Amino acid sequence: MKKLTAGLLALLLAAAANAQQAAPEFPDARASDPVTLGYMVGSPPPADRRVAFEDGSYLRFPQLRWALSHWRELRPTAPIYRGSGKLSVLPRAERTDIDAVSFTPMGGGPRMTWAESLAANYTDGIVVLHRGRIIYEKYFGALTAQGQHIAHSVTKSFFGTLAAMLVHEGKLDETALVSKYIPELTNSAFGDATVRQLLDMTTAIKFSEKYTDPDAEIWDFARSAGMAPLPPGYQGPRSMYDYLPTIKKNGEHGAGFTYRSANAEVTAWLVCRVTGKSAQQVLQERIWEKLGAEQDAYIQVDSHGSAIGAGGLNTGLRDLARFGELMRLNGAWNGQQVIPAAVVADIRRGGSPEKFRNGGYTTLPGWSYHNQWWISHDDHGVFEARGVYGQAIYIDPKAEMVIARFGSAPWASNIYLDPKSLPAFRALAEHLLATDAGKSKRR
Amino acid sequence: MKKLTAGLLALLLAAAANAQQAAPEFPDARASDPVTLGYMVGSPPPADRRVAFEDGSYLRFPQLRWALSHWRELRPTAPIYRGSGKLSVLPRAERTDIDAVSFTPMGGGPRMTWAESLAANYTDGIVVLHRGRIIYEKYFGALTAQGQHIAHSVTKSFFGTLAAMLVHEGKLDETALVSKYIPELTNSAFGDATVRQLLDMTTAIKFSEKYTDPDAEIWDFARSAGMAPLPPGYQGPRSMYDYLPTIKKNGEHGAGFTYRSANAEVTAWLVCRVTGKSAQQVLQERIWEKLGAEQDAYIQVDSHGSAIGAGGLNTGLRDLARFGELMRLNGAWNGQQVIPAAVVADIRRGGSPEKFRNGGYTTLPGWSYHNQWWISHDDHGVFEARGVYGQAIYIDPKAEMVIARFGSAPWASNIYLDPKSLPAFRALAEHLLATDAGKSKRR
Repeated sequence: MKKLTAGLLALLLAAAANAQQAAPEFPDARASDPVTLGYMVGSPPPADRRVAFEDGSYLRFPQLRWALSHWRELRPTAPIYRGSGKLSVLPRAERTDIDAVSFTPMGGGPRMTWAESLAANYTDGIVVLHRGRIIYEKYFGALTAQGQHIAHSVTKSFFGTLAAMLVHEGKLDETALVSKYIPELTNSAFGDATVRQLLDMTTAIKFSEKYTDPDAEIWDFARSAGMAPLPPGYQGPRSMYDYLPTIKKNGEHGAGFTYRSANAEVTAWLVCRVTGKSAQQVLQERIWEKLGAEQDAYIQVDSHGSAIGAGGLNTGLRDLARFGELMRLNGAWNGQQVIPAAVVADIRRGGSPEKFRNGGYTTLPGWSYHNQWWISHDDHGVFEARGVYGQAIYIDPKAEMVIARFGSAPWASNIYLDPKSLPAFRALAEHLLATDAGKSKRR
Repeated sequence: MKKLTAGLLALLLAAAANAQQAAPEFPDARASDPVTLGYMVGSPPPADRRVAFEDGSYLRFPQLRWALSHWRELRPTAPIYRGSGKLSVLPRAERTDIDAVSFTPMGGGPRMTWAESLAANYTDGIVVLHRGRIIYEKYFGALTAQGQHIAHSVTKSFFGTLAAMLVHEGKLDETALVSKYIPELTNSAFGDATVRQLLDMTTAIKFSEKYTDPDAEIWDFARSAGMAPLPPGYQGPRSMYDYLPTIKKNGEHGAGFTYRSANAEVTAWLVCRVTGKSAQQVLQERIWEKLGAEQDAYIQVDSHGSAIGAGGLNTGLRDLARFGELMRLNGAWNGQQVIPAAVVADIRRGGSPEKFRNGGYTTLPGWSYHNQWWISHDDHGVFEARGVYGQAIYIDPKAEMVIARFGSAPWASNIYLDPKSLPAFRALAEHLLATDAGKSKRR
């Protein structure tokens, strides 16, 4: 009962947040379509149709609708090759009944259809797998099936999984201090944090992730990573290796969950330090080459050539769905156990909802964060990888459904997208279960 | 007789140039191997093993030996997708008699073997096709068969070919002024140059291409293109579109050949303007997708998203060889006429050796430059695509031989590589013809 009350409160808060952002301050998905607007078309593109890194236009809406599908044209990136392995074919069984699936947005409001939700969430592409078959696939804006899109913090779930694999193999001790592996962090906030606290983001660090605050530390982070332009005369750090050791402690580690991208960057550093390889190399060897991916992926690198493990990965949408399906299948894929089943089981068990509660995620009541995945603890066993502006891998084991979505919403925080995303995903899962049950009855 | 004397004089000049550069100021290929040196290995790489764009280390030797195989990790790039077409398999018929082929370097000196020439030229990778079969393939330094390497000015030959195709189709008038298509260039040196003068680089422009002179205009060009770091407080142009209109005239167009990369950049601009597409899109649709390439290629883009048509292309080595073979086969490939035979024939006929003579290419006596290809006018009909630091596609129609080479020499100008490259290529061609003749006799 206590949990239910907290959940209701969270829903009300979410509704309030939703109401605040619902003011028509941004053009809708159609009006902001980067192809219709002609961004970056022409020789040269007209000045008001250019998207560039240096002037910050790549982060302004609606220019970002072009940028998120063209990241490598803006920043240096390293390839993550698919290798010579056989393509994992995703069989097609497309359904026409999905667009009409309807749901009530979180926090109330009129019912909405699945099709309407795609535009409301500024979707760039969405693929739904049911039992491994593509039952729905759409592209909008600047994304195509052949293109790649930045996955933002969905990247974290890849590196969290890799770190969990290293823990499973005994190469990384989750009870050890981070500074055991990375002495450079001894005098930083991470010096006395354990690997487990890092992977579950229960560290206490002075680091604001509020994208709308230009003074938030997330912007120091972004400038160091090469993800935000440098102001004239900038003298600050120019790589993750230089920036991360400067982060200060702000409370007691382990007390509660606070989502901070710096933890993920240290996680990627741990993966490199423990394996002796680059982050992109580990991701390629252990996951991408084994996925039967359609496309090479790529990842942004900083000025030291270091991959941005907190948010630099770019992939094709169907390949992102393949990774989700691999997780749904508990790490087994094409006859290989790519990720140990115990690692996936541990991720799905999740972390502590108690510790998660005060993390500010009002749209995720009862959820937890573990190994850089978001765990719902709901009756479908849903778990999710999430990235700003609408990037997501949503895995519903009970409905045997995986959704991969790329987006380019005007709002960084998914709190503004969840009200019209999570109920849509749930409604589709229930629809799949119901139509399956109907079929069974008719048999 | 007059031509022969000029040729001899050129050889003497080349020998003198060669003697000058032969001073042991750079470590040899083995001592400068970027893998042995451990460039960019470690988390972070040690300070003296880093290669970065911002500090200019990517252009210093031996760091450039890493950089030329990792260009996209340093700069923004656009993909050139191979598409879903069937791979063009290059059959293998590797020969063991090639390493021992010997030759006398241009300008004299002791005889040298083919194998020795590879190290002397700081080769990163070399593939030899004979009648379309791979008879020799080696990789060194930071390059692998799966990797990509910057092709530098070999890029020009791709866009020169595309421009020649547009001329052939009547979409581009070679007798028209460049300013007919690009009015923005009316007040620049290019304003009263014809398309033909541009494609053959007989324009007269104030533009020094001397890489060793920090005040040469090639560095203004490189800074505008995003190919060289910007000094603090830089206020100059930041794109090709802003830079090219500033170039001034310096003499009379059409008088003689002077190799200037700015011409190639304007050529790529013409290709965009005439087709209404981006340079990478045209290259992808008209060549790369039809090549049955093994890999996606990629090309550096400037801050306006414009591809650097003078030198930004990066490819896998075997794909570069495929393009050479397509040219050797007069544009016919996999049952398709990818490039009109008349276009290839025109390229092979070449330009004016008279106009070429004073261009400063002492190692290329009797050659000419046409549609951004280098034509030998020798008895084998050799023609070549050439890029700084050793990039080359060398096509010998008589010997039915194509050589694709990537390199990372300490010297930008191929004048320093030609003495141990061109005679090696010729010796191999003669060896192939001789062993063929031997076989025919034995039959």
